[in-house]
Formats: sequence, structure tokens, C-alpha cells
Amino acid sequence: MTNRIQPRTLKGFRDLLPEPMIAREHLVNVAKRVYESYGFSPIDTPALEYTEILLGKGGAESDKQLYRFEDNGGRDVALRFDLTVPFARFAAQHVGVLGIPFKRYHVGPVWRGENTQRGRYREFLQFDFDTIGTTDITADIETVLVVHDLFDALDVGEFTIRINDRRILNGLLEQLTLLDASAAVLRALDKLPKVGAEAVHGELVESAGAPSDVADQILEFASLRGTNDEILDTLEGLVSASSVGERGVVALGDVVRGVRAAGVAESRVAIDVSIARGLDYYTGTILETFLTDLPDIGSVCSGGRYDDLAGLYTSQRLPGIGASLGVDRLLAALDELELIDRRTTPAEVLVVYFDAERRNDYVALARRLRSAGRSVELYPEPRKLGAQLKYADRRGHRVAVIVGTNEWAESTAQIKDLATGQSETVPLGDLEAALAQRLTGNS
Amino acid sequence: MTNRIQPRTLKGFRDLLPEPMIAREHLVNVAKRVYESYGFSPIDTPALEYTEILLGKGGAESDKQLYRFEDNGGRDVALRFDLTVPFARFAAQHVGVLGIPFKRYHVGPVWRGENTQRGRYREFLQFDFDTIGTTDITADIETVLVVHDLFDALDVGEFTIRINDRRILNGLLEQLTLLDASAAVLRALDKLPKVGAEAVHGELVESAGAPSDVADQILEFASLRGTNDEILDTLEGLVSASSVGERGVVALGDVVRGVRAAGVAESRVAIDVSIARGLDYYTGTILETFLTDLPDIGSVCSGGRYDDLAGLYTSQRLPGIGASLGVDRLLAALDELELIDRRTTPAEVLVVYFDAERRNDYVALARRLRSAGRSVELYPEPRKLGAQLKYADRRGHRVAVIVGTNEWAESTAQIKDLATGQSETVPLGDLEAALAQRLTGNS
Repeated sequence: MTNRIQPRTLKGFRDLLPEPMIAREHLVNVAKRVYESYGFSPIDTPALEYTEILLGKGGAESDKQLYRFEDNGGRDVALRFDLTVPFARFAAQHVGVLGIPFKRYHVGPVWRGENTQRGRYREFLQFDFDTIGTTDITADIETVLVVHDLFDALDVGEFTIRINDRRILNGLLEQLTLLDASAAVLRALDKLPKVGAEAVHGELVESAGAPSDVADQILEFASLRGTNDEILDTLEGLVSASSVGERGVVALGDVVRGVRAAGVAESRVAIDVSIARGLDYYTGTILETFLTDLPDIGSVCSGGRYDDLAGLYTSQRLPGIGASLGVDRLLAALDELELIDRRTTPAEVLVVYFDAERRNDYVALARRLRSAGRSVELYPEPRKLGAQLKYADRRGHRVAVIVGTNEWAESTAQIKDLATGQSETVPLGDLEAALAQRLTGNS
Repeated sequence: MTNRIQPRTLKGFRDLLPEPMIAREHLVNVAKRVYESYGFSPIDTPALEYTEILLGKGGAESDKQLYRFEDNGGRDVALRFDLTVPFARFAAQHVGVLGIPFKRYHVGPVWRGENTQRGRYREFLQFDFDTIGTTDITADIETVLVVHDLFDALDVGEFTIRINDRRILNGLLEQLTLLDASAAVLRALDKLPKVGAEAVHGELVESAGAPSDVADQILEFASLRGTNDEILDTLEGLVSASSVGERGVVALGDVVRGVRAAGVAESRVAIDVSIARGLDYYTGTILETFLTDLPDIGSVCSGGRYDDLAGLYTSQRLPGIGASLGVDRLLAALDELELIDRRTTPAEVLVVYFDAERRNDYVALARRLRSAGRSVELYPEPRKLGAQLKYADRRGHRVAVIVGTNEWAESTAQIKDLATGQSETVPLGDLEAALAQRLTGNS
């Protein structure tokens, strides 16, 4: 007579079952290891903030998508829509204790009431890192290196980090006396990969107020191609009359040369003056990361330099640079590339259990193998061998350890390789060593 | 002229700065490692659920504390207040794909609009593990082993896991013809450590309707002390007339003997028939975990067996057993015991930067050391040595690598141990080996 409730998630939300979750944990762990290897420290901030902290910081679109409500204490609160705005608030609040320079990473879910078409979710995981409190180009170089080492370690095939400097386009616009329209120009250029040159030309003329020949020049600029050194040479000539443009070209050259000096392959980092990043707060270096095998999914790790992250909350100026790994977008990419491991268990070994009289012996055996560093699942009830092996096959254990009545009597164990189906019998006392030999090295 | 917004968190919410966050990451990583070594797989569920999924599942108190609101699509939604109810919904929804038995772990924040006195937070991290789809006592034994191995690995001093079986008290109450009042008796007994025997006696008489001599018997039962074997002997006699009580005693004996057979020290697991756990859904084994050095903070890891986790959402019966580690409560305990590492950086090495002409050489050197497995922060701008060493001292790096103009000329580096202040000079080419020797083994 119970009134059952339909088990379901909200539209745009989803559960992660073990298979994608194991893959996501792997992404997060690799990113943590790389970020930590560069000295970024973990922090955490609440999911909920006062609405006034978040509102208006990401533009009209993000305000509209905010999960905002009144809490039981009558406070106007909202769920964070990114990790950058809470970090700005965090930095302003704690800079006295933290000191500068300060390097942090932060992984956590963010919420946006987006249109759920095109496989977008309303809750997704981001993983940011930032260095604040310095304007030195060293931080820009290391930011690119972090992104490089991250994708190198993730083993997701070839990738390119496209870099640019906001000031270069601004220098050009200054020379074209179009600097006031820079936001509109950026918005137009940001659409270039999607809508093509003709449509962008139209928008440059109509929204940014550029004469047609000036729009041509901007588009020619955005289509600049060549080696990094060739592009740098061309850019120097193009913006030589603008000091802000020149500073941008110098900085971009410093970043490219610094990254190269650190041993990164030329193919991995490419100057692309057409990348603009939609966000207003970037002021110098900007970067986007594309997977060679999946160019269409867009950038999977993006960031840049900002003059003043925390200016809305404090008078202390906190310049910095950072980037954000879109964990769930990358996870979707891995799924598409069929790079997700099909295992649904973290345990390499299944200890089969069929002699009910021997329960405590199985429990003790499994624990003994764990002490030797193995991850071991004990099937929790006595069942037929076939059912337990089918279970192991479905979960993805690598070997089954089988100790039946005969084996107990003889103090032996069978090790069954679940990929090949082959078995070997070893003395019970040698089980740790036999498993180590079989499982180490190629896990 | 900017209207600055005061940077602050909501009442009952907090930021985690690097020091506590590094400690919390350590707790979470150790728990993950132990849970995975037993074959529990990670899952994730959304922070937001339909309110009907959550409402009424944790009792009136938890309904009142719910962060509940209407989303932009007019849905009645709420933030989860624990990880158990979402898991019940998850299990009901996906059991066909998952198959049983199914073992999962889940770490994530939960939200409760609690009274913020007594250092309670409104957002806190929980870390649950559960085995569902089996009634076999093997799962109960392994649950206790997981909790044991977790606290053993966490290195938080001595601890005791107190275990009990719900059916034993029910058996006693059946014999005392007080079974109908079992919920009221449980509620009264749950307060025993806080309010004492006399007050509980009063409540047993008034709320549970027990005659005074019956209340005496219940209190005598709850104060049962001795070795596990002694208590089991006594219990057998006490509930011999009740079949449910007997089943409880047999199960409790099986758990105690199984855990002992697996090699766990007798002092770590103690039968305590007074532990009751407030929650209604427990039906068999229950457990709580206490730190010997901090008995007053209460249980830091609790759980038990339930007959039917997902019955509200599906007709498939899903019995199981699990426990929940209160990560933030444990973190507070570690802080109180002064067991938190005072480092605020994950990097062992700070590469000092003072020769601006050599920027790319510093960047390349730092990256070279990372390739050798070290975590290395490069100070991001050229400053005086003293300022950079002060920074390292504050952050907690273990050594500074100093390469000044002379050292570059001579291809040497100074390694300065920041704890002892001692320095040694090594050839630049030997730096990896020298750091490995100094930093490995006692990190």
C-alpha cells in the first residue's frame, strides 16, 4: 500500500555510475597531481553564496541561469555558477592570511540553469587553478606549462594550446580608431569558427560600427597563420604604432619562447590571434586547448590573465592568471573517443566464496591480500562458481582467486585470469607473490 | 567610485584555506584507498533532487532543515541533506544496470539549515560506503573491517568501534511485552551518555510506558559490560525466549568472531548494547566509532544494516549495510588533537628566482625537477632572497633551490634545508639525485 515515488533526477542533472565515475576520478587525480607538482594548493568554498556576490559577475546570461532562492533565514542566496567569482570573493576576504603570491586549485561542481539541448548539463564539474599577486610573465609561462603537462599526462591523444594576448587586438583597434568598440569586435570574432568570415564581417560593420575595409583588415588579422616566429614577426609590424599592442606582442613572444625553452614541442603551442575568449575580465595572455581528434567540441581548458580579480570586493589589487579544466566536457570527449575504461570496480581481485563453513577463512584471506597492497573484493555470499565469475566478468576484475573445499584441504588456491580464462594453482602461502607477479606492471 | 561588496560567506558556511584543505584531502584520499581496497566503486549523484525524493526520509527535523526552493522551471527542488537518501533513489533507478550485489562509495557535501551553535556547519562533507543486495553476515563483517582499516590507516590514535544488533533490544522488549514502544525506548536509550541513567529511567516510564521495574531491567541491560565473549554469553541467556533476539545475538557473535579471525585486535571492536542509533531504518548490525583521545565529540563513523533501502522508490527489495565517515567532524577532531600538518603548499621544493635575465632557465630547471617526480614551485618574480625564503618558510616548503649568478656561471645549485637552515652546494646536473636523497623516505 506504499505510495512509491518515481526514482528520477531533475532535468539537466544526472547520476554518475561507476564506469564514468572511475574515468572522472582518474581525470581529477591526474589534474591534482599536475597542479600540485607546480605548487598549487587546494582550497574549497561553499556551494551557496550571497546572491550579491555572484550577480552581475558573469553577464546577463549567467544571471538568468542562476539557481537563486531565499533561504530559511530570509537571505537571498544562490548556487555558484563558476569557481572564479567565488575565488575572487575568497581572495579578497583572506588575502591578509594567505599572503601573495598565492597559487590555488579548486575542483567542484557549478550550477547553471542552461538550455539542456546539445548534451549540456545543469550541474558540472570544473577544475581551476590560478596564480594571483604577480604580473610577472613567468606566471603566464608556467600556466601554459601546467596545461601542457596536464594534457600530456591525461593521455588523450594530440592537443594544441592556442595562445594569444588581448592587447594585440586592442593595439590594432587603436590604430584603426575602433578601440571603443573592442567588446563588440571581440564578440563578433568569438563567433568566427561557428558562423564564418562573411557573417562576422556583417556583424563587425553593423554592431561594431567598422567601415567595410576596416572589417576586412580585422578579418585578415584574425586569419593570420604560420609558425609562431613568423606570426610574431608579422604582428610586430602590424601593431608597431600602438604601445599597448607592442606590449602584447612582446609578452606573447616571451610566453612562446619560455614554453619552448622549457622543452615543450613546437606543435603543442600555437599562436592564434583569432581566439578572443568571451569574458570581459581578461587583459593579457589568453589560452584555449583543443583535442586534435575532436576539434568540434571546442576548448576543454581555457583561461587567461586578468588585471584585477577581486576588485569588486576589495581595494587591494590582485592581478593574476589561471585556467579552468572542463572536467565533464573532457569526460564526454573521452567517451566519444572510446578512451573510457569499461571496468566498474576498483578491485583487481575477486575472492570467490562458496564454502559457507569457511566464511571467516575467506574474510581473513581477502584481508591478508589487501595487506599486501592488492585491492580485493570478497563476493559477499556463498553462490555457485559460475554466478560469481559472471559477476567478476561484468564488473571487470582482472583475476578471480578460487579456494574450494579441495583447495582448503590442500592449502592451495586457483588464480583465474579473467581476460584469458587461464588458471594456475599455487600454494596458499605464495598467493601474494603470485598475484603481485600477475598484476603488477601492466595494470 | 565602485560600490564594493563585502566579501563574506553565509552564516554556517565557510571557506577552507590550504592548511585544513590539505588535511581534508588526506582524509578523503585515505578513505578512498581503503574503500577501493575492498572493492567499493565510486558513484556521484546531483546536489539537487526533486523535493519529494528527500522529504520525510530523515524525519521532521531534517525536513525543517532542508534547503528547498522552486527552480526557474517551477520545480520543487532541494539540496540533499545526506548521501543515503540519494543513494536509495539511485539504487532503485539503476539496479537493473548495476546488478547486485553492488558496493559503492560516495563522497560529497550535504546541506542542513542547522542551528549553527556548537561549531556545526550548514554544509559539510560526508563519505559513505554501502554494500547492497545481500543479507549475508559476510557483508556485516567486512563493513566493520573497512571502518577498522580506515581508522588504522588514518593514524588518529587509538579508537574503538562499538557494535550492537538492533534485534537484541527488540528481543528483550518482546519478552518484556514492550515491543510496541521500541522506538520510544530507542530514543530514550540514545540519550544515556548525555543525560544519565536517572533521566532515561524517567523517560522510559513516561514516554515508553514502561513499569518502573521494567525500566530498571532495560537500564541494567544497557549497562552490560565485559569482554565480547562474556557479553555474548550473558545476552544468550537474557533473550533466549525471543527468536528475534536470539537471531540478533547469533549475528552479533558471527560479526565479532569474523572480525577477530581476520586479525583485528580485541580492543578495537567492543560490543556495546547501549548504542541504538537514532535512525529508524536500521534493522540488524549497528556500529559507531569513537576516538580514545576525544570521546566527547561522539561517533566519527557510524552505520548499520537496513532491511530495505530503496523500498520508497521501487518494489525490488534491496537490503544492505553501510557506514558514513563524518569527514568534517573528523577534521575538527584532528585540529583539536593538533594532528594537522601546518604546511599550506603541496610543493616540497621552492626554486628561488632572482636573476631576471635567467627567467627561462629557472622555468626549465623547475620543469626538469618535476619530470624527476618532485613537486616544485618556482617563485614567480625576481625578488630578494630573504623575501623568497620568508615566503617558503610561511608556506612550508621543505627545501629551497638557490641558483644565483655565480651558481649559473659554475653550473651549481645550493640546496637549503628550510627546517635546519643548512645548505649544501651540488653540481646542477646532480640536483635531481641530491633532492631525491634529501626528500625521499621522510616526507
